[in-house]
This record gives sequence, C-alpha cells and structure tokens, in this order.
Amino acid sequence: MNVRTKGQIHIIGAGLLGTSIGLSLRNLNVDVSLEDSSPAVQSLAIDFGAGRKLTSEDNVSMVIVCVPPDVTATTIISALNRFPDAIVTDVASVKAAILTEVQASAADRARYVGSHPMAGREKGGALSGRPDLFVGRPWVIAVEENTKETAVDAVEKLALDIGATTIRLSAEEHDRAVALISHTPQVVSSLLASRLVEADEFDLALAGQGVRDTTRIAASDPKLWLQILSMNSQQLLPVLRDYQNELAEVVSALENVSGSGSLAKIGNALERGNQGIARLPGKHGTRNTSYAQVVVMIDDKPGELARLFNEVGAAQVNIEDLKLDHATGAQVGLVEVSVMPAAEEKLIATLRANGWKLAG
Amino acid sequence: MNVRTKGQIHIIGAGLLGTSIGLSLRNLNVDVSLEDSSPAVQSLAIDFGAGRKLTSEDNVSMVIVCVPPDVTATTIISALNRFPDAIVTDVASVKAAILTEVQASAADRARYVGSHPMAGREKGGALSGRPDLFVGRPWVIAVEENTKETAVDAVEKLALDIGATTIRLSAEEHDRAVALISHTPQVVSSLLASRLVEADEFDLALAGQGVRDTTRIAASDPKLWLQILSMNSQQLLPVLRDYQNELAEVVSALENVSGSGSLAKIGNALERGNQGIARLPGKHGTRNTSYAQVVVMIDDKPGELARLFNEVGAAQVNIEDLKLDHATGAQVGLVEVSVMPAAEEKLIATLRANGWKLAG
Repeated sequence: MNVRTKGQIHIIGAGLLGTSIGLSLRNLNVDVSLEDSSPAVQSLAIDFGAGRKLTSEDNVSMVIVCVPPDVTATTIISALNRFPDAIVTDVASVKAAILTEVQASAADRARYVGSHPMAGREKGGALSGRPDLFVGRPWVIAVEENTKETAVDAVEKLALDIGATTIRLSAEEHDRAVALISHTPQVVSSLLASRLVEADEFDLALAGQGVRDTTRIAASDPKLWLQILSMNSQQLLPVLRDYQNELAEVVSALENVSGSGSLAKIGNALERGNQGIARLPGKHGTRNTSYAQVVVMIDDKPGELARLFNEVGAAQVNIEDLKLDHATGAQVGLVEVSVMPAAEEKLIATLRANGWKLAG
Repeated sequence: MNVRTKGQIHIIGAGLLGTSIGLSLRNLNVDVSLEDSSPAVQSLAIDFGAGRKLTSEDNVSMVIVCVPPDVTATTIISALNRFPDAIVTDVASVKAAILTEVQASAADRARYVGSHPMAGREKGGALSGRPDLFVGRPWVIAVEENTKETAVDAVEKLALDIGATTIRLSAEEHDRAVALISHTPQVVSSLLASRLVEADEFDLALAGQGVRDTTRIAASDPKLWLQILSMNSQQLLPVLRDYQNELAEVVSALENVSGSGSLAKIGNALERGNQGIARLPGKHGTRNTSYAQVVVMIDDKPGELARLFNEVGAAQVNIEDLKLDHATGAQVGLVEVSVMPAAEEKLIATLRANGWKLAG
C-alpha cells in the first residue's frame, strides 16, 4: 500500500480515538509518538502498539489532538505553540465552538485544521482502540477561509490512509449535520432508556430487539456527551423543538383517538418515519454490509460454539464478525456468522455437512 | 423431540406471524391448516410449507388468529362460533381492547385465550416467515378469571413447542408492559426518523451506526402500528408524557447552557439513560451487567476462534455471549467473552494456561 502520510505524527490523548488512530497508522509503518495526561494511560497505549514516547530530538509534522471536547481548544492552542512547524488537527465531535476559541487566541491558526472522524463505540479508553475503527467511515475536514491548503491536504491524506471517506465542510455545516444525525439520536435514545429506570422488572422481561436497538447508544459516556450537547446547543435546539412539536401532536391525537383527524395524525408520523429511514444512505459505506450473514441454531451448552468454530476453521473459512442472539431463558441460541461473500457458499456447505441447522 | 401440541391447528391469517407459526409447527410434524382472506396469500403460505388447506372433514383443536389487530376481535368471535369445540387464541400486540370486545359478544369466551409472541421483523408478509422466529422469545399468555385452565395450558404448550418462553400476565399487565418496552420505542424511533425527511442530503451522508440503530424500527408497517398505538393509547400516554416532560427539561437546559443547574439537568438525563439500559435483561433473564467479560486478543486467521472456543469448552465453561471486534486487514482482533461471574476465574485461568493474551 502506498502511504500518503509523511513524517512523524504526534497524538495527544490516548483514549479510544487517539489509540485507534495510532494503531492504524502503526499498521502502515508511520512513525507515531503519543502522550496522555495520565502516565498510566500513556504506557498502556504504547504497550498496546499505538505508538512510542515523544523524545526531544523528534521532528513532528502533524499533531492530532484527541482529548475531551471541553479541553480540545486549549490543547490545540498549546500544540500550535509547542510544535511551531507542525500542522495541528483535532477529532472532537463539535467544531464551531472550538474554532472560535482557537481564532480568538494568539496562536498561528493557519496551521490548524479541525476534523471529525464519524466513528466511535459506546466504550471508550485505550483498550477499546482498534485499527479499523475508521474504515469506511466519514471523516469531516472543517475547512475555513484562513486555513493553509497544505494543512487541509495533509489531514485529508491521513484520513484516507486509515481508510476513512473524507468530506470537506465548514465548521458550521458540520455542527448542523451532527446535531441532526448524531446529537439528536443521543438525546432521544437517552431519554427513552431513562423511562426504564423506574420500570417494573416483569415489564422489562418482555424487552425485545426493538428497545435494545433504540436504546443502545444510551450506554454512551455521560461526561463526554454532556460536553458535546452543551457545546452544540444552538444547532441541536431547532431539531429537538421540531421533535417536541411532532410528539405533542401524536400525544394529543392519542388522547382523543376517535376524534376527527387523530388517526391521520398518528399514521402520518409513522409514515414520515418510513420516509425518513429510507433517506439514510445505503449501508455500502459501512463495513458490515460487505459481509454475507449466515444464522446458525446452536444448543446453549458448553462446547457447542467450540464445535461450530472448529468446523468452520477446519474448512479454512475466516469469520469476519459474529453476533450471538440474546434469548431470554432459552436452551437454543442463534449465532449470526459474517463472512466475506466469496466464502458464504463454502460456509453453508460446511455447516450443512456437519449437521448444523441454519435459520432463514 | 417430544411434541406437546396435540391435534390439528388452524391458522387464520397468513402474514409474518401466521406463516412463521405454521412453519415451526410443520417442522414438528403437527397437522396445520391455514386460511387467509386473500386467496393469493393463502396459496403462497401453503406453497411455502406453512400448512395445508382446511377441509370439511377436519377436526380443529386450536385456532390461532393472526390477522391485523383491528379485525382480531371479530375474527376471534367468528372462530369461536365456527369451531365450537376448538380453543381459540390470537397473537395481536394489544390484549385488553380485544378481550373487552370478545367479552361483550355472545361467543363462548371461556375457550378464548389471548396471547402475544414478542417476535417480529420490520418486514411483514408470508415470505418473511421463518420457523425460528419465536426461538428464545417471550410469549405472553393473557390469563383471565373466566378462561378454562385447559385452554391456557394448550396455548402455553404450543408456544413452548415452537421454542418460545411463556409468561402469564393479565391483559392489562401485558398492555402496560408493551406500552413501555415496545410501543414507546416505536413512537420515539418514528419521530426521530421523521426528522430526516427534510434533511439536507449532505447531512445524511454523515449517518453512522447510532442513528441507524435508533431509527431501525421506524421502518415498521405504519398501518399495523397505527392500530397498535391507537388500541393501547391509555397505557401508552403516561409513558409518552413522562418522556415529554424530561425532554422539555433538557431543551430548556440547552436554551441556557450557562445557567445555574443546566449542565446538571442534561447530565442527569444522560446518566439516567445509562441506568435504564443497564436494567434491560440479558440472556436467561439475567441482566447484561451480571456477566463477567473477558477480552482476549486473537490472531486474525482461520482456526484461532476454533482453538479459543475449543479450549473454553473443554474446561466446561459456558459462554453466555460474545462479541468479536474484528479488524479487516489487521493482524490482531479482540474477542469479548461473557460468562456467568462464577465462571470468570476458571475462564481466565483456562485462557492463560493456553497462552492467550488477555486485554485489560
């Protein structure tokens, strides 16, 4: 692979994103140094293979600031001063508030390019880092009038090197988009999960995949999200107010179901839901869809998974991903095995030959 | 397998649920007849293997009504009259409104037992039917004072035969539970997806897994859900009003982020989201959080997973859940293995003894 990124990359902040960027760049043999305000976290990320310690002889060409949003601007400003020849970028989920703070400082802001890789997991920390976190994910580069074109190019090349799809937007365009596509879902999901706090345990026993999927991101870090939501409140509020208005309409229709126009109002909201989800771009951009999925029924006892993977491994089929279905109290489980499409036929033949029951 | 269900089962309505029930009963060699108001759908379901046509010589022991909720009660009443010796059940997602209508009729309601298999897919129709749809899923049996115990038993046995986990509740208890765990998520998800209808296409290009998961069920059938929501409005409204109140608090805090107590309000909502999702039960009815998780580093090549599960199985440790963080093209992957807390020590010892690297 022809690596576009040149020189030494220095990462500040070894959380999920910092560690993942380090791991993916190290896979490309890029020279990566890293630091974290916590010496323990820094050592862990270095042990994990995300980079090496910075030395006084180093000549850093780009600094990537991967610290929490509320300290991102001050860290960028300090990095612009500490590394006077380096391009500086960051990965925070909000861009306008940070840009404003950097512009208000005395630092050489022509070398700063805000960016935002649209990738993450509910679990943070260096140990959650993975080199493929950015593969097929959008990576926004926030381009402003005063930014050096060479700096924008360098950040874009780095994002492309680690597998992301780059999109150039202004900080404001970015913040409007993520308010809709990321911050509103977070609020909606957290408030839905909040309804479960005082719920009867027997009611919760009926939970299926729907409530699990809609509340999955409610498990995200409250400290991080408090910063994101409060730093992007101006873009977030119009979307939440529209949401409130439509919810109020549905509630008032449900209060008087037999009233004139009530069913039409509820039905309209449900149909708009259909239309909205249909507008989400196809999954071709994401990793998962390039895989073929086969669902296997297994007995819920020790050794069954071992036998399954043994036989699949013996057939030289590589499992790309897998998911165990949550079955409340059942003796049978479902395993969804993902493989490269070219391996699907072989996988099915192998499973059938070994007597596995395939679902679907 | 010892099949508990005796006699001929007749299914009315060959949609997703009717067809899936037919397919799973046929897999157990139970005699299944089926009918649908659409001759084309009926033929399709029969071709698909979900059952055979009803004949005038048949002696039906149980009728399962699988028609849309708004015509379920009338279909139950007509079935009680058409099949004077048969037990009659239904699978609609609301129970109290249907029960009231059946009780108000002249039909022999002691033979009627409402039920609700908590299983489904966004896609409906006979062709989406699958025999394993109910495996490991909760199946609510709505028990009322006047219902014959033999009828309740027969429905429960059928549900157990096709792999579901049965739960006996009153119609009202059921409706309260699904309002929280199923109907509220549907409203919340549809209204979120509705925000995307007028969105800028470039904003949508940034969509990640979070918005996809939270809006997945917004793709559900609006006609079906309009019936469900309007038939269960009395149980649904209190939950939606609580949701509205907490959303209004978050919005007002975002309107004045620097105001006293604003950050605490937003942070509190996010933290309640964490607490709520932690209460969702995991496999075997236990909570997700009651599992111990061990993260293992594996080489990304065929046979490694097999070796891992082989060794864990040989140690008689039962894996409750697992998640593979596979890295395309990376040399190392992480497997998160969940076991009962009591088995954690044994799992770790086994893995270490076999030379696996554990993360964290």
